[in-house]
Amino acid sequence: MATDLPPFLAACRGQAVPYTPVWFMRQAGRSLPEYRARRGPGSILDAVRDPALAAELTLQPVRRYGVDAAVLFSDIVVPVIDFGVDVAPGTGPVVEKPFRDAKDLDRLRPVPAPFVEEALRLVTAELSHLPEPVPVIGFAGGPFTLASYLVEGGPSQGFAKAKALMWSEPDLWAELMQRLAEITLASLRAQVAAGADAVQIFESWGGALSPADYRRYVWPALHHVVSGLEPQQVPRIVFGVGAGELLADFARAGADVVGVDWRVPLDEARRRVGPGVGVQGNLDPTACFAPWPVLAEQARAVLAVAGRRGHIFNLGHGVLPATDPDQLARLVELVHTETARSRDDASA
Amino acid sequence: MATDLPPFLAACRGQAVPYTPVWFMRQAGRSLPEYRARRGPGSILDAVRDPALAAELTLQPVRRYGVDAAVLFSDIVVPVIDFGVDVAPGTGPVVEKPFRDAKDLDRLRPVPAPFVEEALRLVTAELSHLPEPVPVIGFAGGPFTLASYLVEGGPSQGFAKAKALMWSEPDLWAELMQRLAEITLASLRAQVAAGADAVQIFESWGGALSPADYRRYVWPALHHVVSGLEPQQVPRIVFGVGAGELLADFARAGADVVGVDWRVPLDEARRRVGPGVGVQGNLDPTACFAPWPVLAEQARAVLAVAGRRGHIFNLGHGVLPATDPDQLARLVELVHTETARSRDDASA
Repeated sequence: MATDLPPFLAACRGQAVPYTPVWFMRQAGRSLPEYRARRGPGSILDAVRDPALAAELTLQPVRRYGVDAAVLFSDIVVPVIDFGVDVAPGTGPVVEKPFRDAKDLDRLRPVPAPFVEEALRLVTAELSHLPEPVPVIGFAGGPFTLASYLVEGGPSQGFAKAKALMWSEPDLWAELMQRLAEITLASLRAQVAAGADAVQIFESWGGALSPADYRRYVWPALHHVVSGLEPQQVPRIVFGVGAGELLADFARAGADVVGVDWRVPLDEARRRVGPGVGVQGNLDPTACFAPWPVLAEQARAVLAVAGRRGHIFNLGHGVLPATDPDQLARLVELVHTETARSRDDASA
Repeated sequence: MATDLPPFLAACRGQAVPYTPVWFMRQAGRSLPEYRARRGPGSILDAVRDPALAAELTLQPVRRYGVDAAVLFSDIVVPVIDFGVDVAPGTGPVVEKPFRDAKDLDRLRPVPAPFVEEALRLVTAELSHLPEPVPVIGFAGGPFTLASYLVEGGPSQGFAKAKALMWSEPDLWAELMQRLAEITLASLRAQVAAGADAVQIFESWGGALSPADYRRYVWPALHHVVSGLEPQQVPRIVFGVGAGELLADFARAGADVVGVDWRVPLDEARRRVGPGVGVQGNLDPTACFAPWPVLAEQARAVLAVAGRRGHIFNLGHGVLPATDPDQLARLVELVHTETARSRDDASA
């Protein structure tokens, strides 16, 4: 029965909720002392490849914050690790031999990631023992975001190399997009099979393109990924940073929920995505550095324009490493308490 | 007579133009071999303080490209140099003792910059000898952008320090905004007195704030600067990156023209700024790395949605240092030729 869904999944479906659900992008991470205690130095990929550790890191923020969803501890480059991608601490993804020409397509194939599936099984087993079930979110990178890492090969300024390839060799670019869409879809399907209750596609850097370029060169691949997952199976969230002009395109690709950064007020975001699509967000992550009364005021301002139904509270981007976990804990409590109090407005 | 204005100034005023005027943000800079030949190493501020050199660097792109406006070779930190700001090559502005508390307000005072005024006099003298007069644009940083440099003290991630100060100490922040507005206004008035025909306010990083925060914490200072210059004296352009949700606020502050990055199509930008306000932009600067046919197509796409009247062609951000100057030269020619050809549509 629809009303039996956990609040996070109910909100993804646009159903009434007892309170607005909340989770945080990058809630499992360096902001948590228990994370730093377990992770140690080295690439994030070492931790991702260790299912027991990845499961533990996934569960830490659920225990600490009482968030309404877990998000698998992993990385968007995992499905393309075999391309020679590593994640350098403090730098981000680096690629030994960046994508340059058609030969490089041969290095891009869907490969199983049994450690991801095993971590998901451990997480869902643990979460099913909780008094209230907590869903777990699987994820993948959006096609432009993944391609930008493969082509740039390291930190980039304005994604100049990726865009140059896109414009100079549109056929090769289209093949790259198609290949990444297939790899991403295979990864998401495997995650769903292993227990993911929802998926988020991080098209984090898609907003670096003009809307016309995004629609022409990337959107077909995004559409392939999102519409390749059956909506009745799991809700699909699509998120980007600085992607205010792409929100309608994310919805049109089949997203059930569109993740919004803090630049676009959620009432305006709702106008852009249209009816029947949820919104997720969108507190400025740096607001967590403000004194609590300011942070509370900012959170209330998000709730005030979000509307109740079909809203999942989140930050507008990932938790910053220097964030005080106590601020996030109070934020969860505020969102739960204040939206439960106004339950009579739930149809708003 | 209105029709005697150079095309750039006519476009700023929303008047009919013989062709769409074009200039490029950071047109004077490292992309030009003649610039690299003259500049040598060292801080940009050394060159800015040398009026003859600054004038020469200002004029180089006018000679090479036939752009419709010169833009003074200077830097937005010039009015706050006495705060202890330097510009590190490859890094950007660095501040020895960043802004921290009320005592630091004493270090922020309007100071004359005679070298800037002398450079402007040299530039206008030279430009007045051309067969067709070419206007020169003076400029300053927007209040959030300037404050972000002073508070962060160096390269920043998400402007966390600036935002934390803004939220934690709103009264101090308001005083900082007021002080920067006064300094900026004094600088712009001096530039106009020395011959600047228009001014642009680079609120480059304002888009890092949510619209609600920008309106509450920064907009009054922006309004003070823009409305402090008489519109009948010089046109006032306000520009920001990733500031799509602030375009109406820039217009409401008194901007005659709003500069738009490549994320917001110019027809949508016009809807946001409303009638009577011009738009400037907005080709993706990385498109200059595309083969010429692609670049030409992208430029035509900008022209197609911009409308003729009240449009100044520009990139959506500054010229990237690796840009081939020949691409920019062809771009100027394309914009001039194709918009002159369609002159009959000039009322569009």
